[in-house]
Amino acid sequence: MEALTGEEVAKLHQDYVMQSWHKQGGKAMPVKEAKGIYLWDYDGNKYADMSSLLVCSNLGHELPEIVDAITEQAHKMCFMSPAYASEPKSRLAKMLVDVAGPDFYQRVFFTNGGADSNENAIKMARMVTGRSKIFSCYRSYHGSTLGASFASGDWRRFATEAGGEAPSFVHFMNPNMYEDGFDRGVDDEKVTKLYLKRLEDQLIYENPYNVAAILMESIVGANGVILPPKGYMEGVRALCDKYGILMICDEVMAGFGRTGKMFAWQNFDLKPDMFTFAKGVTCGYVPLGGVVVSKKISDYFTDHVLQCGLTYSGHTLACAAGVAAVSYYLDHDVCAHVKKMEGVLKPFLESMVEKHKCVGEARCIGLFAALTIVKNKATRELMAPYHASNSVMPTIMAELKKKGFLTFGRETNINICPPLIITEEELNEQLPKLDEVLTWVDETYCG
Amino acid sequence: MEALTGEEVAKLHQDYVMQSWHKQGGKAMPVKEAKGIYLWDYDGNKYADMSSLLVCSNLGHELPEIVDAITEQAHKMCFMSPAYASEPKSRLAKMLVDVAGPDFYQRVFFTNGGADSNENAIKMARMVTGRSKIFSCYRSYHGSTLGASFASGDWRRFATEAGGEAPSFVHFMNPNMYEDGFDRGVDDEKVTKLYLKRLEDQLIYENPYNVAAILMESIVGANGVILPPKGYMEGVRALCDKYGILMICDEVMAGFGRTGKMFAWQNFDLKPDMFTFAKGVTCGYVPLGGVVVSKKISDYFTDHVLQCGLTYSGHTLACAAGVAAVSYYLDHDVCAHVKKMEGVLKPFLESMVEKHKCVGEARCIGLFAALTIVKNKATRELMAPYHASNSVMPTIMAELKKKGFLTFGRETNINICPPLIITEEELNEQLPKLDEVLTWVDETYCG
Ligand SMILES: Cc1ncc(COP(=O)(O)O)c(C=O)c1O
Ligand SMILES: Cc1ncc(COP(=O)(O)O)c(C=O)c1O
Repeated sequence: MEALTGEEVAKLHQDYVMQSWHKQGGKAMPVKEAKGIYLWDYDGNKYADMSSLLVCSNLGHELPEIVDAITEQAHKMCFMSPAYASEPKSRLAKMLVDVAGPDFYQRVFFTNGGADSNENAIKMARMVTGRSKIFSCYRSYHGSTLGASFASGDWRRFATEAGGEAPSFVHFMNPNMYEDGFDRGVDDEKVTKLYLKRLEDQLIYENPYNVAAILMESIVGANGVILPPKGYMEGVRALCDKYGILMICDEVMAGFGRTGKMFAWQNFDLKPDMFTFAKGVTCGYVPLGGVVVSKKISDYFTDHVLQCGLTYSGHTLACAAGVAAVSYYLDHDVCAHVKKMEGVLKPFLESMVEKHKCVGEARCIGLFAALTIVKNKATRELMAPYHASNSVMPTIMAELKKKGFLTFGRETNINICPPLIITEEELNEQLPKLDEVLTWVDETYCG
Repeated sequence: MEALTGEEVAKLHQDYVMQSWHKQGGKAMPVKEAKGIYLWDYDGNKYADMSSLLVCSNLGHELPEIVDAITEQAHKMCFMSPAYASEPKSRLAKMLVDVAGPDFYQRVFFTNGGADSNENAIKMARMVTGRSKIFSCYRSYHGSTLGASFASGDWRRFATEAGGEAPSFVHFMNPNMYEDGFDRGVDDEKVTKLYLKRLEDQLIYENPYNVAAILMESIVGANGVILPPKGYMEGVRALCDKYGILMICDEVMAGFGRTGKMFAWQNFDLKPDMFTFAKGVTCGYVPLGGVVVSKKISDYFTDHVLQCGLTYSGHTLACAAGVAAVSYYLDHDVCAHVKKMEGVLKPFLESMVEKHKCVGEARCIGLFAALTIVKNKATRELMAPYHASNSVMPTIMAELKKKGFLTFGRETNINICPPLIITEEELNEQLPKLDEVLTWVDETYCG
């Protein structure tokens, strides 16, 4: 087959591909090549991938270790179905349990991506507890299949509700200190107490003994890297223990070194009963997701049939990519590197808060970071209210792109989540571009 | 990394992998190698894969054309996110539309597998029609995420209902001529009329103008390759047209040459508004699924935001595998070969009905076939009633396996769905094993 030109790739995309979360028929930039933290279009323009695409290419693009594992496995056996054991699946399951802590965790259920990892965790929680209700946060995203979407809090859930809402999904408001008007490092104790009280009240009004699980992103990602106040996550765990509720942490975005720990829940003094993963497990090279479950949950399913399944559970090629990626995280102590790079990124972002009228808050843990963009710093008026259609943020993203700095944002956040292998030099080369664009935002929108 | 022994692979699987649709801790056969229609375990035993695993390895295992496409793409770019155009995604979208018929179809939304392809088709149908209800068949399976599972009819749905049933999923009974007591080729007209009348009555009692879509497997697969009576599918299409309901065909199992047509709906005189696919599109080598939509549906989303999305939509490596697989189907006229092999398989299976007390009916279209196993042929008493736990069928499967004939079955069906590249010689080598085991079933269970 002859290679297509960039124009042909773009035209076929425009004509034949259904583009997610968009109206159809728009233009999409055709990407020709990707390597390390960079992408190239067909005109030879180079872009730094400062969001790891959708916070998935944690080890950057075309890492030789993962590519080699894929090609090697492809020549052996691309796929063997769930009923059979295969080396990559067996290996990866053990590796993940070992990283999570083999004293507490036991097994892995594999899926294809993030949404179905949460779907299966929800199903398991209901089976194990015999209870129906799933509590989850308004400020959250867990995927777009029906169950994952009902559990999600953000507006991407609304379309799913067109068929009527499924019963037994209950949402609670998780803290967002800045937007709620509190000061991080000052009000943590107060906010934690307040929000835990609210959550417990809501549990009680919903009958806590009918709540199967509380599902939470360990650190809320797409909704703006919302760092919980100190003690909050541990408090949620305590409520779960008090009422016999399972705690499920969604590690789809925050997992695999992103926060400087292999799993983001390891930043807190708690262990979830199950946690879900995807993205970083293969860095997106082959689709893979899953759920790691505790011994207790595993034991339940020794006596009861696990009523879960999908054709590609434990996909051979995907697990081979997973083995290579997880080995790389461990062998190269990627978490230590992330902590070092946090030492570059975090002070820089904090200096942006000092310097720019438009930057309300900077949140950064590891290489998981976001800025809140405001119209007015004194009143904390956001650049755009929640779920408002607005043109400012897309314009900011376009300005960044012009400078070769690719990332994504939402109503009022700019996410900065580069590949974890980014070097200090690369950070120092890219971050000034953000500074320049923020100056332009100050002048244009914070008059 | 040193290769594991078969025992190690099996032990790690037993200890660390969550096994779908089973109690945990059981033994799974470790597979070392797969090529063409064969698998090998670690003791060098060879098995013929007479079910294409889960009816997905349509082109057999390790087809060089797909393996090469994967390794080539892996070295270029494993993954680029949905927002960007990439050559494999653009190419595959156009190929699928061209195969489906570019006069009527326009775009492809890509997913990771079968369940999420149906999830997204359901969401789109609700958005486009502004209606909520989804009609689907009791005798069906559409996947295990919440929406796909609620749409499914078989017992794999039950566990999902633990949280309470989502509103707006309505099930209707689709015909199964043999089990319903009719004779194929004799009673078709009568059965079609009867079941269409029942369906229309049910639509009317549910308000047909609140029905968004009727979702059906083009030919019901896992529940026993249930061939619809002549005229039935066209009648469903006519009801859809009458009430402005969208028709969604699930081609996850029946698609990509399985029935001797690229898509199974092409066996009927109709065009679904959307159809979903997975499995055969890559033969499982890399997870991929999707929805092909008509021009009309595509047009709706030119003016309205498509509220669907997933990280791996249009996954680059998966689409490259898809391009290779679809090219192979077309370039090698796999459909013509399937029709030829049907000429071997179908008469053989029909002769099994003649010969064996335990074989009630044989159904075969292309290389998509199943036998209904009965206790008593005169009364059509099934070997096991629906959703009965029974040991007969697993025992039959184990007997087949001993002879190196791997397939799966349900309560009372044995599925025979070999890779589409199987040769006449290979069929003639394998099928006598089935004959032998059926003789043993006659003697053991139909005394
Ligand atoms: C925290 C979280 N959970 C789940 C998902 C859904 O993952 P997927 O898009 O693979 O279905 C996402 C996707 O961004 C996510 O960020
Ligand atoms: C007709 C049909 N639809 C959907 C599915 C679900 O596909 P997956 O297992 O990839 O989610 C299957 C799986 O066997 C199927 O046979």
